[in-house]
Amino acid sequence: MALIVQKFGGTSVANIERIKNVARRVAQTYSQGNQVVVILSAMAGVTDDLIKLASQAASEPDRRELDVLLATGEQTTAALLAMMLKDMNYPACSLLGHQAQVVTDCVYGNARILEIGTQRINKLLSKNKIVVVAGFQGQDTQGNITTLGRGGSDTSAVAIAAALKADLCEIYTDVDGIYTADPNICNKARKLKTISYDEMLNMASLGAKVLQIRSVSFAKRYNIPVHVRSSFNEEEGTMVVSEDSGMEQLMVSGVTLDKDQARVTLKKVPDQPGIAAKIFTPIAEAGIVVDMIIQNMRPGGKTDLTFTIPRADFKRTMEIERKVAEKIGAEEVLGDDTIAKVSVIGVGMKNHSGVASVMFNALARESINIILISTSEIRISCAIEEKYAELAVRVLHTVFGLDSDICSDT
Amino acid sequence: MALIVQKFGGTSVANIERIKNVARRVAQTYSQGNQVVVILSAMAGVTDDLIKLASQAASEPDRRELDVLLATGEQTTAALLAMMLKDMNYPACSLLGHQAQVVTDCVYGNARILEIGTQRINKLLSKNKIVVVAGFQGQDTQGNITTLGRGGSDTSAVAIAAALKADLCEIYTDVDGIYTADPNICNKARKLKTISYDEMLNMASLGAKVLQIRSVSFAKRYNIPVHVRSSFNEEEGTMVVSEDSGMEQLMVSGVTLDKDQARVTLKKVPDQPGIAAKIFTPIAEAGIVVDMIIQNMRPGGKTDLTFTIPRADFKRTMEIERKVAEKIGAEEVLGDDTIAKVSVIGVGMKNHSGVASVMFNALARESINIILISTSEIRISCAIEEKYAELAVRVLHTVFGLDSDICSDT
Repeated sequence: MALIVQKFGGTSVANIERIKNVARRVAQTYSQGNQVVVILSAMAGVTDDLIKLASQAASEPDRRELDVLLATGEQTTAALLAMMLKDMNYPACSLLGHQAQVVTDCVYGNARILEIGTQRINKLLSKNKIVVVAGFQGQDTQGNITTLGRGGSDTSAVAIAAALKADLCEIYTDVDGIYTADPNICNKARKLKTISYDEMLNMASLGAKVLQIRSVSFAKRYNIPVHVRSSFNEEEGTMVVSEDSGMEQLMVSGVTLDKDQARVTLKKVPDQPGIAAKIFTPIAEAGIVVDMIIQNMRPGGKTDLTFTIPRADFKRTMEIERKVAEKIGAEEVLGDDTIAKVSVIGVGMKNHSGVASVMFNALARESINIILISTSEIRISCAIEEKYAELAVRVLHTVFGLDSDICSDT
Repeated sequence: MALIVQKFGGTSVANIERIKNVARRVAQTYSQGNQVVVILSAMAGVTDDLIKLASQAASEPDRRELDVLLATGEQTTAALLAMMLKDMNYPACSLLGHQAQVVTDCVYGNARILEIGTQRINKLLSKNKIVVVAGFQGQDTQGNITTLGRGGSDTSAVAIAAALKADLCEIYTDVDGIYTADPNICNKARKLKTISYDEMLNMASLGAKVLQIRSVSFAKRYNIPVHVRSSFNEEEGTMVVSEDSGMEQLMVSGVTLDKDQARVTLKKVPDQPGIAAKIFTPIAEAGIVVDMIIQNMRPGGKTDLTFTIPRADFKRTMEIERKVAEKIGAEEVLGDDTIAKVSVIGVGMKNHSGVASVMFNALARESINIILISTSEIRISCAIEEKYAELAVRVLHTVFGLDSDICSDT
């Protein structure tokens, strides 16, 4: 007997038929002798509809009240699944965030879980109940309803799994696992059997939107094995586990692509102390997040400074930096909102030198110019021209030996 | 400064525009220097839609889970109104049933309020907040969500008004008050300025579906003045108050009609002790509620026994009584599901003899046969043939001096 937490996303509960499918899957796990806690998202589209309703009600919907409104989405699916299971003669009981003792801070719309009291869930489990918890929601210490932000149900699931010391957390979604690359770009991409928490953290933040990044941090901290799999078939998905738990030993586990990128260059910046602060403080104050930065020395005490930002912030950043350039005496500000970031990720590269040179050479062979580079212990990212993005993914996927043997496998 | 509880029904919050109208009205009351607690129903139709959804999910939706589902309706309107008020720069805060400390028993779907803790509402009021409470819902002592049954938001409002010792409870609805009769039947019906709790209790149970009957009992017990009025205009409605608070002194305050009636007659029943139990126990056990009963003696130790029941239970009752008749040796069972009950109600009749004879004579003058009669201290009801129902209402309305002077007033 194991204690299994199963989380079903919005597409898995998009309508009554699909929720019935979820009920059957939950019942099956329970019938195999496991204790089951189910975490649900709202039906696909419902959260967006509620946000739209709120925008009709108020020009700037109050964040506390918006959370009260949004919490109805998961409340609905939790009640429906529990009544279905009972109708199938399985003992089930729904719990809302506050009933499941999910205590958060009071940052409405993006709350963080502070603590999960396990008494109520454990009491129900000890009575052999299937516990159905509304995901995405909690309650602050003052008894106000809070929500955890986009994808928050993943975090609910992993956090509850951690609090209960569950044996496994299954994340059911509309993809059947984590792939070595986006199969839409690279038809030789293949599903990974396992991936480490750290690789997943790097994948998630780079655009593989399968698991909410915060939930992965949680899983890593409490060492909860997470199984990402499809709710539409019975296939095994991808296990997200700690690095040392018998993973495949690949140098690189995946290639990701992020097209939400723009570049800004300040030409001939006087190279003086404090100049970087003058350039970056105004955009930080505007809430714009800088990703990669590169500085090229020129003769005569001047440098060119290039950095990347999300594409949506491109215009604002250009306006800000034009004023900065005037103030600090830089020659001009250039920009480009048609760049992309391609990354290779793998815990294996810690033990293999030469990953970077393999990557750079592979791109060079295709005449793809590298605009910026950034690295972490298990990731190397290159900003390149957007038009080469898909080609770069395919080339890197091949050069790092990730191609599946059977192309039609994807 | 007064403490005013304002309750808005489903048609008053049916869409965003109407909720905005509610927001303006609440803001106006608040701006006049009052403390305001608002109780909301779900948008008209939403509760029915949710029940339909539940019936798709389960053949017999579990009552606990159905309450969790239904509670989303009032949660939605409460959040929307609070965010509108804040958007209009009024300090508002929504509370769900459990947050407003509405403690009920655990009869899901038809829970009774046991207690209302006032700390949280009072704390918000002391901070000059407009408190917006989701009606219809509460929490049992184990922390499960409960709902109060159809029209339960009226009960929420009056109970919260009682707990807070409010000066007034306003019930905003889609009619502009309590009328002396249904204006659709009697075009001389007029709006009452005041009505007593007891009259209202008799009106409500007889089919004037303006106020939930339980809420009126609550208002009576705690002596909360209730103002029933329209949310679509500014006119004064009808005050529901205690009998001695300077009401109009009418002998009869209203004439009501209930067509949901059927009659069953057992002919030539042997007149023996215990025979009534044999007749009525089987239908009580079938959950059928008997309203009026009459027994006519016949020569030779036999009686005819006639009683009324809700029309929906007619067929089942006939089947049951046919078996009973055979067992007890009654001659035959007759029935009629085309009868109606017309009633006159008024606390004034306590001090006036002869109301009954005025009523019976008025009906007799129109050749309307009275099938059964029942009375209470402030009500006389007659079962008559359905085809005379509307005529009977008009005749009684006139004979008891209720007709408005100006017909077009309705």
